[in-house]
Amino acid sequence: MSAFLMAVVLRPMSVRERSDLTLAMLASGRSLDLSAVKAPTVDKHSTGGVGDGVSLSLAPLVAACGAAVPMMSGRGLGHTGGTLDKLESIPGFNVFLSPSEIVRTLRRTGAALFGQTEDIVPADKRMYALRDVTATVESLDLITASIMSKKLAEGADALVLDVKTGRGAFMRRTGDALALARSMIAAGHAGGLKVSAFITDMDSPLGNTVGNSLELAEHIALLRGRIGPDGASVRLRELVLTFGAEMLRLTGLVRSTREGRTRIAAAITDGSGLEKFREIVRAQHGDPSVIDKPERLPLSRCRGTIKADADGFVSDLDPFLVGRAAVLLGAGREKTEDKADPGAGFRLLKHAGDRVTRGEPLAEAYASDSRRLKAGTDCFRSAVRIGNRPPLRRRLIIRSLLQ
Amino acid sequence: MSAFLMAVVLRPMSVRERSDLTLAMLASGRSLDLSAVKAPTVDKHSTGGVGDGVSLSLAPLVAACGAAVPMMSGRGLGHTGGTLDKLESIPGFNVFLSPSEIVRTLRRTGAALFGQTEDIVPADKRMYALRDVTATVESLDLITASIMSKKLAEGADALVLDVKTGRGAFMRRTGDALALARSMIAAGHAGGLKVSAFITDMDSPLGNTVGNSLELAEHIALLRGRIGPDGASVRLRELVLTFGAEMLRLTGLVRSTREGRTRIAAAITDGSGLEKFREIVRAQHGDPSVIDKPERLPLSRCRGTIKADADGFVSDLDPFLVGRAAVLLGAGREKTEDKADPGAGFRLLKHAGDRVTRGEPLAEAYASDSRRLKAGTDCFRSAVRIGNRPPLRRRLIIRSLLQ
Repeated sequence: MSAFLMAVVLRPMSVRERSDLTLAMLASGRSLDLSAVKAPTVDKHSTGGVGDGVSLSLAPLVAACGAAVPMMSGRGLGHTGGTLDKLESIPGFNVFLSPSEIVRTLRRTGAALFGQTEDIVPADKRMYALRDVTATVESLDLITASIMSKKLAEGADALVLDVKTGRGAFMRRTGDALALARSMIAAGHAGGLKVSAFITDMDSPLGNTVGNSLELAEHIALLRGRIGPDGASVRLRELVLTFGAEMLRLTGLVRSTREGRTRIAAAITDGSGLEKFREIVRAQHGDPSVIDKPERLPLSRCRGTIKADADGFVSDLDPFLVGRAAVLLGAGREKTEDKADPGAGFRLLKHAGDRVTRGEPLAEAYASDSRRLKAGTDCFRSAVRIGNRPPLRRRLIIRSLLQ
Repeated sequence: MSAFLMAVVLRPMSVRERSDLTLAMLASGRSLDLSAVKAPTVDKHSTGGVGDGVSLSLAPLVAACGAAVPMMSGRGLGHTGGTLDKLESIPGFNVFLSPSEIVRTLRRTGAALFGQTEDIVPADKRMYALRDVTATVESLDLITASIMSKKLAEGADALVLDVKTGRGAFMRRTGDALALARSMIAAGHAGGLKVSAFITDMDSPLGNTVGNSLELAEHIALLRGRIGPDGASVRLRELVLTFGAEMLRLTGLVRSTREGRTRIAAAITDGSGLEKFREIVRAQHGDPSVIDKPERLPLSRCRGTIKADADGFVSDLDPFLVGRAAVLLGAGREKTEDKADPGAGFRLLKHAGDRVTRGEPLAEAYASDSRRLKAGTDCFRSAVRIGNRPPLRRRLIIRSLLQ
């Protein structure tokens, strides 16, 4: 297998070979059987970013609109956060669902948020362990087969892919992100899945927060319709509306993207998304009281403020360094066996393009001890550039590849 | 290591990388310390052919001329024969020498013929086991490092390489053989070894015999100066003279190739080569009486004659198929753990280019049972072509790369 992985890295696969590898990996384990779920099923997958966490509000909103969302998520690794870590900042929330529990939760609430089980694509875990030690992680073919075999195993009808590009993304260059998106679409089609993909910007942190309970609270604010400096970021909401609309369109629950956006927006306005989230938390044994009292969510007690050291504009906020800084605060993991601190992270008070004056707070930092706080804030400072003019604005949705 | 091997196959190494790999493999074990051997030391290595066995007469002849020859050899595998199997057809002959026994035998007789010991390049054995199962055997870099690390571990001053080309060789094309020769020369130089190489023809069997005791007997005939249909083949003697002369020249014992040929030829004529062989056999616990009575060598009792099925010329005698046929008779090994039959093989009565009449014997075959005899003779027949004109003559020594 090690020799095979290296061969794939050095002699890339054809589209057909890649799809065959994906299906072979899928066949190494069990797939979920969602035939008992009556609603059309659809998932979203992101290649990972900083201050992202879109799934947290997207899943309840799409479920509130009538689709069923079996969402198998991962944990943070490297500079990126993970949906499971964010969910686990809710006291009691259980991400370890068996296949029958997943089906039951989907039938009851329309969404299930869970981690990969042992019998879903066991080949991937073994292959990844070998890739990690043989310098074969970075391969379009192997990344495609790894992601898509797991997505096919979820047994859903449709999938929306968020392929991020920029310094905070796995694929830093847009061309590479586009190639990965096309590759994943083809592998999904080979497995009978409807797939749309978006190439989205990850050249600055997406939301107003980076961390586990902090991002969760931001999504609760989003579900309450609170947008702006004290609530959820406008860019975050834009991705939720875009992906949610496409998920509804792929399932056939709406006829157009516009209708989809209207439906998702309505689920925010009428509170049905928030209510759905409450149901999901309750179904997965979490404490739903945090939804009404987000101040009950864990927040680490060592706190600091990072201030602007000059007048001007935030000309850059490097998402990779912000992600690294959050890991240093304790919010992520250096190694898979590390445990993430639910209460650590940043509240971003200024974004790239904002005007600042010297001494004005740029961000608040939270950590469990002063050593971590210092390491995280020092790293955060290296991520900020203040200049005389705002940076060129990058589009949030760089490219859409719709089914 | 599996991933590394595949990477090397798909992204060939630079000369420097290849030499570094060779030296790293060498450093995985012990080298022989030949400082106690007073004579200049020199070895010959062949990439393997059919009806070859040149070492059997070459080592004693070169030793008789004053050089010391530490010759680490292998066993037959696939369609090729191995020097160790041929030596072991001498009753009692011991190829398992410890480092101190090798030095003692070299000091006493001027030659030692032995198999690879556990502590010589242990990395090679492990790497080969992985190459075998990861389809990474065929790599110029890996072949070079495997051969040359072992040759450097012998601790000799100089080396003559016989890189065979043609259908019976590992490198079928001359260009590939030349590339391998140059690669091995560079790796030898990196290890401080003097190296000359010859590209030689292996598009028909080299000698008059193919097998273990049969080839040994042919080399005893060569050492006795008996050349021709009842003795050793002219081509075999030509290689022995060529390689022997170059070995003497590299050690500085002679000043020119011509002087070297004269010295080797004299060691045949005056019987000193045969006497040296007797000493070597005695020193390695073999029965020296077989030298004077080669009929005492084992010869399998099931015998058959392969006859020409038409009048004409032997227009082809495919060495690969002849080698395969000898393995079917029992003379070689299909798998490393098989045991070679010392008495099996062919006596070749006609070579490519010889005129034949229908019914005339082409070869005699020897095997331990009739099933093997039939399999071997059937395969041999497929190796023979009889046509209206003789084939184009190929040069025996295709290219010389002298230090």
